[in-house]
Amino acid sequence: MGVIGATGYTGVELIRLLLAHPQVNLKVVTSEKNSGSKFSDVFPAFLGLCDLELEPFYPVEVSKKIQVAFLSLPHKSSQEAAAKLRERGLKVIDLSADFRLKSAKEYEQWYEKHQYPNLLKEAVYGLPELYRDKIKEAKLIANPGCYPTSAALALAPLIKEKMIALDSIIIDSKSGASGAGRSVSVDLLYSEVNDGLKAYKVGTHRHTPEIEQTLSDLAGEKVFVSFTPHLVPMDRGILSTVYAKPFRKLKTADVLKVFKNFYKNEKFVRIKPEGSFPNTKDVRATNYCDIAVLYDERVDRIVVLSAIDNLTKGAAGQALQNFNLISGFDESLGLKLFPHVP
Amino acid sequence: MGVIGATGYTGVELIRLLLAHPQVNLKVVTSEKNSGSKFSDVFPAFLGLCDLELEPFYPVEVSKKIQVAFLSLPHKSSQEAAAKLRERGLKVIDLSADFRLKSAKEYEQWYEKHQYPNLLKEAVYGLPELYRDKIKEAKLIANPGCYPTSAALALAPLIKEKMIALDSIIIDSKSGASGAGRSVSVDLLYSEVNDGLKAYKVGTHRHTPEIEQTLSDLAGEKVFVSFTPHLVPMDRGILSTVYAKPFRKLKTADVLKVFKNFYKNEKFVRIKPEGSFPNTKDVRATNYCDIAVLYDERVDRIVVLSAIDNLTKGAAGQALQNFNLISGFDESLGLKLFPHVP
Amino acid sequence: MGVIGATGYTGVELIRLLLAHPQVNLKVVTSEKNSGSKFSDVFPAFLGLCDLELEPFYPVEVSKKIQVAFLSLPHKSSQEAAAKLRERGLKVIDLSADFRLKSAKEYEQWYEKHQYPNLLKEAVYGLPELYRDKIKEAKLIANPGCYPTSAALALAPLIKEKMIALDSIIIDSKSGASGAGRSVSVDLLYSEVNDGLKAYKVGTHRHTPEIEQTLSDLAGEKVFVSFTPHLVPMDRGILSTVYAKPFRKLKTADVLKVFKNFYKNEKFVRIKPEGSFPNTKDVRATNYCDIAVLYDERVDRIVVLSAIDNLTKGAAGQALQNFNLISGFDESLGLKLFPHVP
Amino acid sequence: MGVIGATGYTGVELIRLLLAHPQVNLKVVTSEKNSGSKFSDVFPAFLGLCDLELEPFYPVEVSKKIQVAFLSLPHKSSQEAAAKLRERGLKVIDLSADFRLKSAKEYEQWYEKHQYPNLLKEAVYGLPELYRDKIKEAKLIANPGCYPTSAALALAPLIKEKMIALDSIIIDSKSGASGAGRSVSVDLLYSEVNDGLKAYKVGTHRHTPEIEQTLSDLAGEKVFVSFTPHLVPMDRGILSTVYAKPFRKLKTADVLKVFKNFYKNEKFVRIKPEGSFPNTKDVRATNYCDIAVLYDERVDRIVVLSAIDNLTKGAAGQALQNFNLISGFDESLGLKLFPHVP
Repeated sequence: MGVIGATGYTGVELIRLLLAHPQVNLKVVTSEKNSGSKFSDVFPAFLGLCDLELEPFYPVEVSKKIQVAFLSLPHKSSQEAAAKLRERGLKVIDLSADFRLKSAKEYEQWYEKHQYPNLLKEAVYGLPELYRDKIKEAKLIANPGCYPTSAALALAPLIKEKMIALDSIIIDSKSGASGAGRSVSVDLLYSEVNDGLKAYKVGTHRHTPEIEQTLSDLAGEKVFVSFTPHLVPMDRGILSTVYAKPFRKLKTADVLKVFKNFYKNEKFVRIKPEGSFPNTKDVRATNYCDIAVLYDERVDRIVVLSAIDNLTKGAAGQALQNFNLISGFDESLGLKLFPHVP
Repeated sequence: MGVIGATGYTGVELIRLLLAHPQVNLKVVTSEKNSGSKFSDVFPAFLGLCDLELEPFYPVEVSKKIQVAFLSLPHKSSQEAAAKLRERGLKVIDLSADFRLKSAKEYEQWYEKHQYPNLLKEAVYGLPELYRDKIKEAKLIANPGCYPTSAALALAPLIKEKMIALDSIIIDSKSGASGAGRSVSVDLLYSEVNDGLKAYKVGTHRHTPEIEQTLSDLAGEKVFVSFTPHLVPMDRGILSTVYAKPFRKLKTADVLKVFKNFYKNEKFVRIKPEGSFPNTKDVRATNYCDIAVLYDERVDRIVVLSAIDNLTKGAAGQALQNFNLISGFDESLGLKLFPHVP
Repeated sequence: MGVIGATGYTGVELIRLLLAHPQVNLKVVTSEKNSGSKFSDVFPAFLGLCDLELEPFYPVEVSKKIQVAFLSLPHKSSQEAAAKLRERGLKVIDLSADFRLKSAKEYEQWYEKHQYPNLLKEAVYGLPELYRDKIKEAKLIANPGCYPTSAALALAPLIKEKMIALDSIIIDSKSGASGAGRSVSVDLLYSEVNDGLKAYKVGTHRHTPEIEQTLSDLAGEKVFVSFTPHLVPMDRGILSTVYAKPFRKLKTADVLKVFKNFYKNEKFVRIKPEGSFPNTKDVRATNYCDIAVLYDERVDRIVVLSAIDNLTKGAAGQALQNFNLISGFDESLGLKLFPHVP
Repeated sequence: MGVIGATGYTGVELIRLLLAHPQVNLKVVTSEKNSGSKFSDVFPAFLGLCDLELEPFYPVEVSKKIQVAFLSLPHKSSQEAAAKLRERGLKVIDLSADFRLKSAKEYEQWYEKHQYPNLLKEAVYGLPELYRDKIKEAKLIANPGCYPTSAALALAPLIKEKMIALDSIIIDSKSGASGAGRSVSVDLLYSEVNDGLKAYKVGTHRHTPEIEQTLSDLAGEKVFVSFTPHLVPMDRGILSTVYAKPFRKLKTADVLKVFKNFYKNEKFVRIKPEGSFPNTKDVRATNYCDIAVLYDERVDRIVVLSAIDNLTKGAAGQALQNFNLISGFDESLGLKLFPHVP
């Protein structure tokens, strides 16, 4: 088991989870920038807990040591890494955006030209609550983005049950600062983010086509959505507030019933009782997605709120869920995480 | 000049602004709980800057000393205070919700039975950008709520110009913790709010009818909106992300032009250039409302973002703007506040 | 196993840890204020994870169900609860301050008259790194305070090795807001604490005699210290910066060696390499105490920095360490907690 | 009037203050990185308030337009800029560390070789409360560092009155993140700083010799101090907790009297009443230094706490105080800043 790109926030979150996983023997952790250092030199929180040496990523060497690789690399770098590891027979769980869009053309439109369009066909979108069966057979998993995870789980029951007008969907999402990664930028300095709030990339964020792809797949027709991301002064967490027009008047209890039924066997989706709303703090550092629903009869509109931890259910936790699935383990192995309060 | 109810967050913000106002002589500051203490005992930030003694509120005594009163009282208490001061001829600027709704019936529906329905008729809704002329003549001003201010300024140009479908309006608002006031509650403890995000009172917040009243007045017909407030881990600020369906396809530049024209003479509304979005931190402790607009052609929807400081433009700053108007002063007197960064 | 007083911050932290403990079957969770509610109603983070009903505390009933009780009660209430449970033969781990001071007289001086002075004699101070052998035999454990834990671990090696002048000790401590508990107070509102920093109870904090008691016990003579607590805008964590005059000139490496040797068998104390300093964030929600030492030759003074999580090593984690010891389990059972970054 | 280096945090704070100063006409704002942009492009908070174009720094051009220059440049760059502007007859207020140390040798020891040692002789250390008369005549002012300001004001009365043992001084300082400047570094990312606390550069921070220089000057003999800086998750503010041994037993009231007398004519130093302690939030974005004193008889030690805003009294505000002094204006002109709560 190895983590390729171990020193970003999703990398370190993967390692936190892998260290606690009873069936995992973490052998390889790579970093170009910090190679030669110990993992715990870069993240002193792990002093004595993970003192593995960070190594540069050499695909041939790596493929001799491990059978499954998690890639936490910047997009584009991930493409090549995945290709080389797949060539050597490894199973790959990629946490970048590189294999999430099925269409090379769409990838090019929102990112740039894809270098390995053939691999796009092989990749399975790793959202277990929706694609569990396919994931079990996958060799290359495109681990979903954080915003798309929160949006898809909030909307899947409504779309599957054909309850809402597909052109009425608005996703207003709010994320903690770790969503922007561990790379330096003036905009992400403490004093820029603290005690303020802003939207960014309104209508143009790259997670938009990923969200639309999943919703379209569920709907059986092309879906377009309004998606607005915001940056909130907190470390972790995404709260998505989703609005949609129902086809007919109903009651909150009706919507609730649909959600409870849709997710009745899911260990990581928790439906809130009527009148209670999720808080990102309740799911922090856990793999849960907390969902509340409301039918607002004054305006004949459904509101769904979903909260996840962007680094856990929105990245590393979900990757581990996928790992468990492709490995034949219990899906929640190593993921029974109890939240701390506060 | 007096502040009735000086020890809440809007009270202390009023006093900050009044101390800097060149035409104001602050004589009375009241507090039931802290009467007998100096203002600076309760707020040590004002040591040497405002050492006035807090007194209990006796309408008769107060009316001998001042001509204009700001009321920063809890709703309901404000009704009686306003009535007694109006009886004695004082002009009253009320920062509570007590005189904002024109209809006593609607007030009863969202709050409780109104004690002074006659005063509702006298009250003028104090949003200068929309009701400047009426305000100038007013004796009793209902100072707008923080959310309603941010929503009304974001939507007024679109509704006035009849650009949007009135049943398509969604207002997703995010507020800092001071919006909940300075009263104790476990939910507002530092460790409950910090590093988390949640929505609250979804579809049921009392600012909803106030927002709808203003929009309806602008539209000339009854408007209903989806309104979702969120609590953000920051002291001050409201960001409202507003969605609406336009009647026809257009361009962002078209929307921008409408907004720039609508607010061309306004000193406290700043329209952001295309592609740039407001940050609550940019308006912190100032009276500005920063607005950005976007037409998202992918989904044929307009997005408007407005940022204010909930305690300044959303409360005390706007109250001072109203005070200037009823006093015949320059509207921005004492309100040329330069933001600090960070 | 039961938690008496489950709805404060130490209570909920205990429950987080107990749920993950392989040898614990949590049967009783009490709360006077919230009795009748489910634990997860009060803490929605635990929805589906701990839905036990909160019950009022009836000692007789409780003593039929469990053999060991954790008390997370306000001081004074704890005295009576402990007495009643001890009468019925239960082992008690008390997280309040009620049994920490050996001297009833000193307790009276800093708190008020002690109701059960006889129990003070029975109580063992539960700091395992210093009193492990006594703890193993204890029936009533006085679980240390958060500040005293961070101070004692920082100073024990220096005092045991007689390296410092006992009248030169200064402990400058900084704590997150959860240290003040989950009770309402204007001073602890989000907007009061956020983006600010202050000292409080300078020279008069009740943890002072507790710190001095431990240091005196180690020194074999009465020790007095300067202790200054500060409130930092963060949820969890204590950083203590400790200053003392050495008896002779030395090198940082010498001090480091003493600390490494003193704590060489300790699983929860991590000594930082020279030139590296602890961050409370590195120990958040874990049971670690990270310590750095420095000999500053310019001023001939030793500086020790210790970081703990006030709710874990400073309260519930340490309580569980004590529980493991009195139960004959591995001391770190259920306490192998991997920190999340960020 | 010009600000050379306008896009760091001290630069933008200077501009905030200069815009509000009744005698200042701001003509020049420079930035190498952002030249050609408007100031409000870089800091959108200033949209409509300061839309001056940022220009590269050409000393000759600049000296034609202004008589006084504020330098907010990185150390070393400041040396050359100051030299060139002084050559052309401008008065210079330098906010870097380049002219604070009188001794070129000491500068070299803590920084690197000084390029203009002659200018060191000309420079006056700009702490008005201690060196007002010299400042009035100065042409080149070395504006004090933030930590040294808070330390010097806390210790000056004690040293001047010869009340404390000079080898007993410990300064435990805590600063908000803006103290580290607006330059990119992983360590300063929001998610690294938020919800954590650490010390840094313990015993080796470059402000140490600056602190010692002032204290030595006051004492008339060489003083060495323990100085420990900490990084606190807040934007602005420094709290210094200072410990020292008095020569004789006394009472808090005695110490208080000395401080009140020492600062009796100072507009920007506020002495707290006994038992009350400063909060950085109370001085945020103002030029005040709030000081509390305590004699702790249990340990025979004096504790002084001083709070300033690192960017105002610790940088730009003090620079403006100095500007007023060299310009013959009232020292507090443009500095009557009312704090906002919260």
